Order: sequence, then structure tokens, then C-alpha cells
Amino acid sequence: MTPQTSEAVEPTSLAEDLSDAWGMLSVEDRMEGFRLLDPVEAEDFFLGLSARDQEELLLAMPAAERRRWLRLLDPDDAADVIQAADEEHREELLQLLDEGTKREVRALLAYAEDDAGGLMSPRFARLRPDMSVDEAITYLRRQARERVETIYYVYVLDERQRLLGAVSLKQLFTASPAAKVRDVMETDLVTAHEEMDQEALGLLFARHDLLAIPVVNSEGILKGIVTVDDIVDVVQEEATEDIHKLGGTQALDAPYLEVGFGTMVRKRVGWLALLFAGQTLTITAMGHFQDALARAVFLSLFIPLIISSGGNSGSQAATLVVRAMALGEVRLRDWWRVFLRELRSGLSLGLVLGVISIAVVLIHFQWSAEVVEHFGRMALAVALSLVGVVTWGTLAGSMLPFILRRFGMDPAAASAPMVATVSDVAGIMIYFTIASLIL
Amino acid sequence: MTPQTSEAVEPTSLAEDLSDAWGMLSVEDRMEGFRLLDPVEAEDFFLGLSARDQEELLLAMPAAERRRWLRLLDPDDAADVIQAADEEHREELLQLLDEGTKREVRALLAYAEDDAGGLMSPRFARLRPDMSVDEAITYLRRQARERVETIYYVYVLDERQRLLGAVSLKQLFTASPAAKVRDVMETDLVTAHEEMDQEALGLLFARHDLLAIPVVNSEGILKGIVTVDDIVDVVQEEATEDIHKLGGTQALDAPYLEVGFGTMVRKRVGWLALLFAGQTLTITAMGHFQDALARAVFLSLFIPLIISSGGNSGSQAATLVVRAMALGEVRLRDWWRVFLRELRSGLSLGLVLGVISIAVVLIHFQWSAEVVEHFGRMALAVALSLVGVVTWGTLAGSMLPFILRRFGMDPAAASAPMVATVSDVAGIMIYFTIASLIL
Repeated sequence: MTPQTSEAVEPTSLAEDLSDAWGMLSVEDRMEGFRLLDPVEAEDFFLGLSARDQEELLLAMPAAERRRWLRLLDPDDAADVIQAADEEHREELLQLLDEGTKREVRALLAYAEDDAGGLMSPRFARLRPDMSVDEAITYLRRQARERVETIYYVYVLDERQRLLGAVSLKQLFTASPAAKVRDVMETDLVTAHEEMDQEALGLLFARHDLLAIPVVNSEGILKGIVTVDDIVDVVQEEATEDIHKLGGTQALDAPYLEVGFGTMVRKRVGWLALLFAGQTLTITAMGHFQDALARAVFLSLFIPLIISSGGNSGSQAATLVVRAMALGEVRLRDWWRVFLRELRSGLSLGLVLGVISIAVVLIHFQWSAEVVEHFGRMALAVALSLVGVVTWGTLAGSMLPFILRRFGMDPAAASAPMVATVSDVAGIMIYFTIASLIL
Repeated sequence: MTPQTSEAVEPTSLAEDLSDAWGMLSVEDRMEGFRLLDPVEAEDFFLGLSARDQEELLLAMPAAERRRWLRLLDPDDAADVIQAADEEHREELLQLLDEGTKREVRALLAYAEDDAGGLMSPRFARLRPDMSVDEAITYLRRQARERVETIYYVYVLDERQRLLGAVSLKQLFTASPAAKVRDVMETDLVTAHEEMDQEALGLLFARHDLLAIPVVNSEGILKGIVTVDDIVDVVQEEATEDIHKLGGTQALDAPYLEVGFGTMVRKRVGWLALLFAGQTLTITAMGHFQDALARAVFLSLFIPLIISSGGNSGSQAATLVVRAMALGEVRLRDWWRVFLRELRSGLSLGLVLGVISIAVVLIHFQWSAEVVEHFGRMALAVALSLVGVVTWGTLAGSMLPFILRRFGMDPAAASAPMVATVSDVAGIMIYFTIASLIL
């Protein structure tokens, strides 16, 4: 809620062009484009950049210019920029701030980046409970000239800085001028502890449709406020992180086209190699059934079809459960309900695919030149395997997120590829076991 | 930004319990729990529900009580509730509103639910350009008593209701009282057209850190405003939709535990059956190589390993590209850059897996009882196949979203299972072709 950016200045065409090309430009080109902007445009442009881009630009400019740009930022944004810098540059950047801000920023840097404390602004408008409404409005008018994050939500503190209540400017506007702040303020507040994770904070905003949430420490002392405009970015980022993980890669933590090639490969190769190692179990599983395969080569025809069906149904289940967990719709203790639900889903989905598969097998052997004895039995074996494999895949996919969370890991690691890997080995075993029983 | 909800009233324990259990309760149980809340609690609770839940609760209560609850809602929220109802109940609910609101809600219902027009509130605070700052503040103080969405961002209109500029209450507070609104207001505004899609609107809020965006029609007439607190939900919903699609299922459009079993299966079986149909191509592909398999059964050992590596790398690429598109980081015209990048990524990742696979194959044949002539060649065949399959999977995964978008479809349909299906057939062909050339 930096005043400059929240006032909705649309970039004129030069700033817009720069913004469009940004992802493709080198630091030098960015700096060059930035210098072409007129002073007001440049300020808006700078304030609209991500913390990482601001940091990069700051370090690219001559040291003498940095102070001006860094001081343009609110303390929470300045803290983000400094956090984005390398260890070696942090102190240097901190020294560019005025004494008061430096103290505020240092306090903010003590919080983990994705805690409520790391997101909050320490500059909130405050009132005493025994002021009159009229005094409060006058006092706020004065605070509006200082750099507070917002004057629309005002926090009422006691002399020890403990949070007593909150009042909106709109409430003050409509209250009787002689009333006391104490009588107008709301006292049942949604607050966040300074160590609340930003994902949980996002859910709190989404659930209560709030514009700002006060952040308190364990003694109830107000440390800062988080405003909803910062939360849009958080919700976006957290979703991106989960999507990347669900796709079987580490979160990129930066726009796709801006990630260097080396980093990109590194973020992907880890999981890929791990999944590959897991997949080598399929060699062992297949090895068990080499004799059966040697006797009936046509059995191999259906291996990809059957194991991929397990992977696909597992990917569906895992994705649904992981997202429901991230949104707080499903908690650890709901695992048994989910298990029963997915057992039924898995059986139903398996039955549907099983029925389709009978037609597929019959048609295939009808039309192909191969002559297979008892291909009716073959169809039955494929259909039954599908019921088993899909049910297993669905259960594995839905339970894996619970297991990961139970052991303190991120449920989003239950990615489509991981679930497919887990269900492939089981798929092979189920298929060959059923086939050798029936044929 | 309903005043009641934005004022951060924390649910006391009864409301909290009800909220926790909500997903598991039948409509009757919900109604019963709702009746236990005291009047103030009940209002906050009702306002905190999703439009769908509000609608359900409304229709569950006696007709005589509905008016009171529906009238509690702002027009944009009332419109959402009415949109959530069946055709047959819509007119009935509309008739419960007062004349003015009914007109506003009818106008909102004309917009698609996920357009800017469907999200906006028509109740914004407005000023004339020739008012003085002092007059403006007095006038706003009067508007604050009416039910405007916010008085913190005020829009300046000409006599034909065209948007001239915007001014924040904070700016009015700090301006000279005698200045004209015209001289204080910002005129370069970020605006949204009434038909802008909500996903694009979410990006606009995220990019510019705005608290409210005015919605205009093609003539520049201000139709309403969208506030950021509504956008948090939109961003959350859009991400959920994409995550569900990427997992290979239709978007659920409701919390996991609240979706009926039938609906749940229906949303999953469609894609699953379609992918199954696609996978039957692997039968044909495998059929082509039955002779080779009959001669060398050990070839089948590596089929699951090789095809799943193609699927996994494709899933990574597709997920990264789909998310980058949704965030506006990658556009249609970037396809060639992405192609080149993913070609390099695919080759690198394939090489890594290829090298690992040589060790895997050698160790496997070393330790197993099977005697395979030339198992060095086998290792080479597997390694080369992996390079080919992973490169192909990566390219297919990264290009599929572009192809889907090019033809007006949702890129998120390039799900992990879909990419795996596309790459399995190719994987089989690549593997057997290379194997028969080398062995």
C-alpha cells in the first residue's frame, strides 16, 4: 500500500514497453531502459518491480544513487530488497537508510521471509482509547502526512503497546464526534501471531475478507500490520510453488523466462533422478515375470496401458487432496474419510476403465493377425487388473499427501510423477499376478 | 469490503466450531447450528460464508426469513448468491430486494460470473471535479453513512458519469482544504474493461499492488469498482482450477469434502477414459515390436522405466509452461524461445538419466541370473533411448500448452497424465527402434 503504487498510475507507453521486455533484458539493458524514463515515471516503475528486480537494479547503479531509490521504499519493502541481496551487500544497503528506518528494517529482517512478521509493515496508524472521535480524526489527519501504511484501519493501543481494538476511519466518520474511541472500536479482532506462516495468513484473509490484519507477539503487543494488497502476491506465489511441486520439480521461485539455464536444469534433475531411481524397481518387478512373458509375449502388449491408468488415477487423487489441504479444506485427521471416499472412487473408476478395456482387448485380437487362444480370458485379466491398479493408484495418490504431511514434509511433493512411480511397480505386480491366475 | 466482515470480528468458539464442522454437515444440521448463534454472531457468520453456502442456507430457511438475510448483502454479493441459485429460484430471490438494489443486481447478473463486471460493486463513492477538498471530505462523510463499498478510494466523474480521475481519502486529508478535487486527483488510472476476465484482473492487482480498480465500459463510463479483498478469493479459485486441471481432472469448483460422490466420479472419469483411449495406441505400438520382444524378452524389462521417464520430464515442462502462461510471464509469441530452451533442457536431463541408466543396466545384468550376450550394447541402447525419450517428453510437454492455447483451449489441459500419454507411444517407438538398430 505504498501511496505511489496504490494510486494506480498507468505506465505510459515507454514504461509499458520496458515492462513488457523486462524478462528478456540483461541487467545493463534494464538499467539503460530505466534511465530513459522521466523522474515520476521512473519512481512508479521502480515501486512496481519485484523485490528481487529492485535489488538487482540498485546494485547495478552507481553507489551514490542508491540511497535515493532505497529510501523511496516503505520499511517492509526495503527489508525485502535487503533480504534479496547477498550477505556481503546487506549491511552496505542497510547503511543507506535513515536511523529510524534502519532500526525498523533490522527488526523485520529478524523474521523468516515467509512469516507474518516478514510481511508486515511496522508503520501503522495508532490511537489511544480515551481520545474522542473528533480528536482521533484530527490526529489521523496529522498521521496521514507521515508515512504510515494506511490510515483507514487504525489500531488502539494501551501504554504498553498492547492491542486493545481497531477502528476504521469510516466508523470514526459516522460516529458521534464526542464519543470515545474506546466505545467505537471493535475488540474481537482477527489477529495473526508474528510467526504465522504466510500461507495460513493468506487463508485468513480469504476466509474473512479483511483489508488488514494486525500482527502481534505472544504478549499481545502490536508489531505491525499486513495489508491485503501484499497478500495477493503471497497467494499467487504459494500456488505457483505448489503447482511446480505437483508437476514434479522444485519450485522455481522466479519467472520461467528469467531463471538461468543452469538453475532450471538443477531444479528439475533432482526429482527426475530420484524418480528414475524409484522406477528401477520396475526392472526387478518385470524380471520376476520374465518366464511368463517368454511363454506369452502378448502379455507385454498391455503393460503400458495398465500401469499408466494407475498413474493417471493416482495423479487425480493426489492433486485433489494436496490442493484441499493447502486450502485448509482437509486436515490430517480427515484421512480416514478421504480413504473411504477414494476407495469408492477408485473402485468406480477402475470398473469403468475395466469395462472399456474388455471392448479394447476383444477388438484388438479380432483385428490383429495374432492368434491367441482364450482371448476372452485375456480380456478378463486386463479388466480385473485395471480395477485393481486404478483402485491402488487412487488410494496411493490420496494417502501419500497425508503420509508426507504426517512426517512434516510438504504434501505437494506427492506429485503426479511421484504417484505414477509408486503405482507402476504395484501395477506390474497386480497385472502379472492376475494374468497368471486366469490364463 | 462489507463493513461487517472487514471489521475483523473473530468468531467466538461456537461460530468457530460450526465453521470447522461445516464441510461435514447436512443442510439441516447447518441450519440448526446457525440458529444457535446469537444475532450479531449469526450476521458475521453469514457474511463470511461463500455465495454457494449462503444460497443453500437461504433456501433452507422459511421464506419469511429470507428477506432479512439477503438484504444484509451488498449488491455484488447478492448477485453472486442469486447466480448460485437454480433458474427457478432466481426471480423469487430477486423479488426480496428493495427496488434500487434489485435494479443494481439485475444489471450485475447480466455480466458473466467471471468477468470484471460480475465481480464489481456498483456502489462507489463519487465526487465532482469542481468541489473543494473541504467540501469533498464533508460530502464523503455523508456518503459513509450510505452503503458504499469504500470511501477510501473516491472516483471523480463528469456529468455523463465518465471517469475523470480518482483520489484517495488520504490524499484529500493531506491536501490544502481550498484546493479543487480536479487538482488533487490522479488521472492516469489503471482501469478494467467490464468484460475483462477475472484471471487477468487478478494479474492486474498483483502487478500494481492496488486496493481497488474501477471498471468502465467502452465509453469510459464508470460501472463499478472491484476491491482487492474480493481478488484474493479469485486468485485462490483460479489457481485451484488450474491445479485440478493439471492433475488430469475437471475443476471441482467446490471444496473436496463437499462435492457429492457422483459429481466427484463424473469430474474424474471423463479425462481418465479419454486418456485410456489415447493409451490404447501403446497396444498398437507394442504390437509392432512383438517379434523383437519374442526374440529378446529382456527388452521388456526396461519399458516402464523408459516410458515413465518421458512422462515425468514432460510433466515438469508442461507444468512450468502452463503456470508461466497463467501468470502472464510467457505469451503465445514466446513459443520459439521456450522451444529452444526446453530442447536444451531435455537433452541435458536426458543425458543425466542416460548416464545413470548405464550403471543401472550393468548392475542389473551383473547380479541377475540371466545371461545376456552383449549387455554392454543393451546399456547403450537404454541410455540412448532415454536421451531421445526425455528430450521428446520435454518438448511435447512444453509445446502442448502453446498448441492448446493457439486453438483457444485452456493450456492447463496439458496435464501430467495427458503429457505422459502423448509421450508413452513415442517412448515405445524410440526405444524399440534404437534397440533393434544397436542389438
